[in-house]
Amino acid sequence: MTRTTDPSCEQAFADWMHAIQRRTETALDHALPAVGIAPARLHEAMRYATLGAGKRVRALLAHAAGELVGAQPEALDLIACALECIHAYSLVHDDMPCMDNDTLRRGKPTVHIQYDEATALLVGDALQTQAFELLARPGLGVPDARRLAMVTLLAQASGSRGMAGGQAMDLANVGRRISRAELEVMHLHKTGALIRAAVLLGADAGAQPLPAAQREQLDVFSKRAGLLFQVVDDILDDTASTTTLGKTAGKDAMNDKPTYVSLLGLTDARRLADELLLDARTALAALGEAAHRLGQVLDFIACRSH
Amino acid sequence: MTRTTDPSCEQAFADWMHAIQRRTETALDHALPAVGIAPARLHEAMRYATLGAGKRVRALLAHAAGELVGAQPEALDLIACALECIHAYSLVHDDMPCMDNDTLRRGKPTVHIQYDEATALLVGDALQTQAFELLARPGLGVPDARRLAMVTLLAQASGSRGMAGGQAMDLANVGRRISRAELEVMHLHKTGALIRAAVLLGADAGAQPLPAAQREQLDVFSKRAGLLFQVVDDILDDTASTTTLGKTAGKDAMNDKPTYVSLLGLTDARRLADELLLDARTALAALGEAAHRLGQVLDFIACRSH
Repeated sequence: MTRTTDPSCEQAFADWMHAIQRRTETALDHALPAVGIAPARLHEAMRYATLGAGKRVRALLAHAAGELVGAQPEALDLIACALECIHAYSLVHDDMPCMDNDTLRRGKPTVHIQYDEATALLVGDALQTQAFELLARPGLGVPDARRLAMVTLLAQASGSRGMAGGQAMDLANVGRRISRAELEVMHLHKTGALIRAAVLLGADAGAQPLPAAQREQLDVFSKRAGLLFQVVDDILDDTASTTTLGKTAGKDAMNDKPTYVSLLGLTDARRLADELLLDARTALAALGEAAHRLGQVLDFIACRSH
Repeated sequence: MTRTTDPSCEQAFADWMHAIQRRTETALDHALPAVGIAPARLHEAMRYATLGAGKRVRALLAHAAGELVGAQPEALDLIACALECIHAYSLVHDDMPCMDNDTLRRGKPTVHIQYDEATALLVGDALQTQAFELLARPGLGVPDARRLAMVTLLAQASGSRGMAGGQAMDLANVGRRISRAELEVMHLHKTGALIRAAVLLGADAGAQPLPAAQREQLDVFSKRAGLLFQVVDDILDDTASTTTLGKTAGKDAMNDKPTYVSLLGLTDARRLADELLLDARTALAALGEAAHRLGQVLDFIACRSH
């Protein structure tokens, strides 16, 4: 897998990425209820689940897409926080004993280990609510009708026909031999829907909406980028160490869950990642130079080590 | 506890109540994804958790409050569905083994018994998302700015400083001897916040907003009605049978959870219910004849047998 950027661009991108990660952390810190507010233990656990780690891929995508439309960074912060709250909630619930029963996440004990199962359940529930509260909050600087459409977009991406539906498909697939098409449908829901929402919500945050044809291109890009993210995840799950990942490596194989690597083998999974990267780049090319930041985030998704 | 309505009014109210319950059932049936849509098992379980039973107290309150402002019944249906989805999600998660570990709800096996724990977790998650999707949906016939405020209101009522926060307080109270003030704070969050939201969202659904002073009266009413609902719940939990309730009776005492009955005794709990009923009626009186339906729902909350 080759990157299109030269080393100086890579440094500039790394600086930008760290800046977005830092400002997302700060924005989440402000958005989440303080520990001093009752119920203190719940708020402490919500912050534990959300702050202090994470690549913030969804925040990076929202900010990069926002650059396309000249969106205000403060508006993108709110969107990024909403996305990261949904993502964090899904991880907390996914790690619970009745789901993946995992003990390590982002290099720390999972919420039900650090606190308890009931708290983990409520943390996930309350983080989901927090996401919608943030997205409906005044201050995005976009017309109300578009803000309502953004709430709808986030809900559709997160619900039973989006991320939660993907989790249900994932559960149903345990121990089954499924086709590549079925695996793709599952991942387009489980991780793809929220990654698509990150891109589209960022692009919806401008004062003016993106022309329909460009939004369509962005939609194609976001779906390819979402699948790429998952294929790379499966490759890393197979090849990287638990320490590098900050979560239990090899977990999917252990749980008898189908992955791109188990289905295609490592070589073909890598080939698929290359194809998806190329498809996503092609979709971006039609958007011109303004999409160059999205291209860098795409490269990061393709080449990340954890 | 005496009712202010004469028998013919009671029959008229019963007819209205059943009509609202039926239309809420129909609206939920349309709002929830069909079983034929993938993932089928999740959608089936979401419908199992939401349809076919329930007093629909929150739907009744939203419709009754909507009468105050001449809101369109179809708009109130959407609001009622959103409220009932949040309520159903909270019941499904609350019944899980890591929370109250209950096996019976609305006269049926709980979702984690009928399906499995992972499905129950996802059902609750997806029902919460569904609520926000419904509330943001076009068709309420109210200005977009007010619709966004309604999303915010539902989120605040449901989240860590509302219902989910109340659940966390409830957990923290197990086995503790708490004061009446602490019990009130817990219930104002756990059940009160969503009942308050039901009343205020109904009243927000008119073409014109309710004057601030009247909305303030309604707010006072909704808080008293919410507490009344809980005190009556505690009394029924102590005095009614599992068959009548459709859920396990005496559960709170068994789980060593403080209730109004355990704290005050049955006689004083009944006296408190009478006081709250009177307070709520007083708040309604200031709203004039248009609030008469809310008064009937209040009487139903006070006098219900399950």
